[in-house]
Amino acid sequence: MRDHGGDIDKAARRFGRDDWIDLSTGINRRPWPVGTISEHALTALPTGASYVRLQEVAALAFGCAPEQVAPMAGASAAIQILPRLLVPEGRAGRAAVISPSYNEHAASLRASGWEVAEAATIAALHGADLAVVVNPNNPDGRSWQPAEIAALAREVGHLIVDESFADPRPELSIIPSLPENVTVLRSFGKFWGLAGLRLGFAVTQTALHRRIAEHAGPWSVSGPALEIGAAALADRDWARDAVVWLAEAAVHLDQIMMAQDCTLVGGTHLFRLYETADAAALQERLARHAIWSRIFPYNPRWLRLGLPGSRAEFGRLREVFNA
Amino acid sequence: MRDHGGDIDKAARRFGRDDWIDLSTGINRRPWPVGTISEHALTALPTGASYVRLQEVAALAFGCAPEQVAPMAGASAAIQILPRLLVPEGRAGRAAVISPSYNEHAASLRASGWEVAEAATIAALHGADLAVVVNPNNPDGRSWQPAEIAALAREVGHLIVDESFADPRPELSIIPSLPENVTVLRSFGKFWGLAGLRLGFAVTQTALHRRIAEHAGPWSVSGPALEIGAAALADRDWARDAVVWLAEAAVHLDQIMMAQDCTLVGGTHLFRLYETADAAALQERLARHAIWSRIFPYNPRWLRLGLPGSRAEFGRLREVFNA
Repeated sequence: MRDHGGDIDKAARRFGRDDWIDLSTGINRRPWPVGTISEHALTALPTGASYVRLQEVAALAFGCAPEQVAPMAGASAAIQILPRLLVPEGRAGRAAVISPSYNEHAASLRASGWEVAEAATIAALHGADLAVVVNPNNPDGRSWQPAEIAALAREVGHLIVDESFADPRPELSIIPSLPENVTVLRSFGKFWGLAGLRLGFAVTQTALHRRIAEHAGPWSVSGPALEIGAAALADRDWARDAVVWLAEAAVHLDQIMMAQDCTLVGGTHLFRLYETADAAALQERLARHAIWSRIFPYNPRWLRLGLPGSRAEFGRLREVFNA
Repeated sequence: MRDHGGDIDKAARRFGRDDWIDLSTGINRRPWPVGTISEHALTALPTGASYVRLQEVAALAFGCAPEQVAPMAGASAAIQILPRLLVPEGRAGRAAVISPSYNEHAASLRASGWEVAEAATIAALHGADLAVVVNPNNPDGRSWQPAEIAALAREVGHLIVDESFADPRPELSIIPSLPENVTVLRSFGKFWGLAGLRLGFAVTQTALHRRIAEHAGPWSVSGPALEIGAAALADRDWARDAVVWLAEAAVHLDQIMMAQDCTLVGGTHLFRLYETADAAALQERLARHAIWSRIFPYNPRWLRLGLPGSRAEFGRLREVFNA
């Protein structure tokens, strides 16, 4: 597997301890409260009716029609499948991916035979047969307005917009005004804090979503994911409260880290990227206190932190620097 | 979606009622008792450690080495992926599938460009670049001994053996003596009665299992599936009791149906296939009592029933014929 956050078992092997606060991902540490999972969701083959129910709830949340929504086993599944389906007439062309960004996009494109260029700016994506933007971007938090995304769509063959971190910022989403040649990926696990469930969505204007479902095969989304996803996405009160908590937590985290000579590079409601003199040293210092963070092989000064999920977790973080 | 069992929502729309006994699948209706799912399994990205733990438990259950086992999101996921990975040098060749059998195999092969022949016997599979056998077979219950499977493997390029219904009959499995050119698929949801979880396995002797994992992408198996799968597969006492219950239930079901002028065509511990004068009429009669069954577009005399899961369910079935 490529270098990712969430590899908490490796951290535990290296540093010992069993009371880790995993801030190495962008997964909300205050998850939507899952109650009892129905026996039906666990035992029966997922039904068409439960799939349609999730499409309807997701469409309402995203601002599109239910038929545009393809539920999938995580945004990751879409990242694997789309480059294969978008190969024009059996021969992959030139793809361009915003960079730096989530590393699975370029890897999956290359595995499907695409020639992949990394682009530092939106303008540098122009002319690609297939372009990928993560909006807001991971790890640096750059974001683009829907008008900018729409303008980019006119300059490329097909555009994939990975909105995995867009739930707290619906005004950024291109979904309500989706051009024909744009496919949007949404994550469920990050904002709702339920990454273990494996649920995500591809949203398109075209028949592509039927080809995605065919490629994934029958019952590709689990019963618990269909059931919990539909209940959580319908819980708009929880979502509003979560956005407020996350925004306040982000401000709080920035204050703590800036007092440690970290500069904020950028971030979203779900992670913050800091520049520091020696990111590996800071990661190790945090890890000795059982707080796991993310560093990047391509930039020795960057450290990314997810947001602590409670006052107690913030307290543990402050202890690191008071020790 | 192709014609499958488990479409209980369609049955409900057609016949009303909400107290269905779904016998349209081969899923054990006495599921392994899932306790509480850990918060970690729901919230965190599945870890490498939980994946390895499941590989170890599955290997012990199947009779192979842990490295041979690729956990997947259902045997269905393997059925979708394998035909793509087994395409030799970019051009699919001639595949042959035992017939009649589970319809997703031929469909998935065709979607990957394979020319697909249907073979009534094992001998008719000889010479194929890629052959598929379901052992024991669905829906007719035909089965082949490991020596027959090994002999077949010598006559084809690559052989996929779908052992989705083999858990109660470990002596049929080719896994403990797996030839290099054979890939075995195992299901978790059927025998353990937890089809909603989406868990299955591909078992190989070769590096193919690494290519399967790469193709599926990171975190393709959910946290609950990894956790519950490892716990259930380690519960050999439950498995032994389940085999006894299922065998007795099969005898019982055959008696009931044979008293209704049904002939047993064949079956496994998880489903029974009957021949009757008019399968659609019998399906409708059962459906009016909210028991859902499976009929087949290619044979108007075949009706397949999963096994009732309790005395109460057997009672409901007997009522149909006493009414």
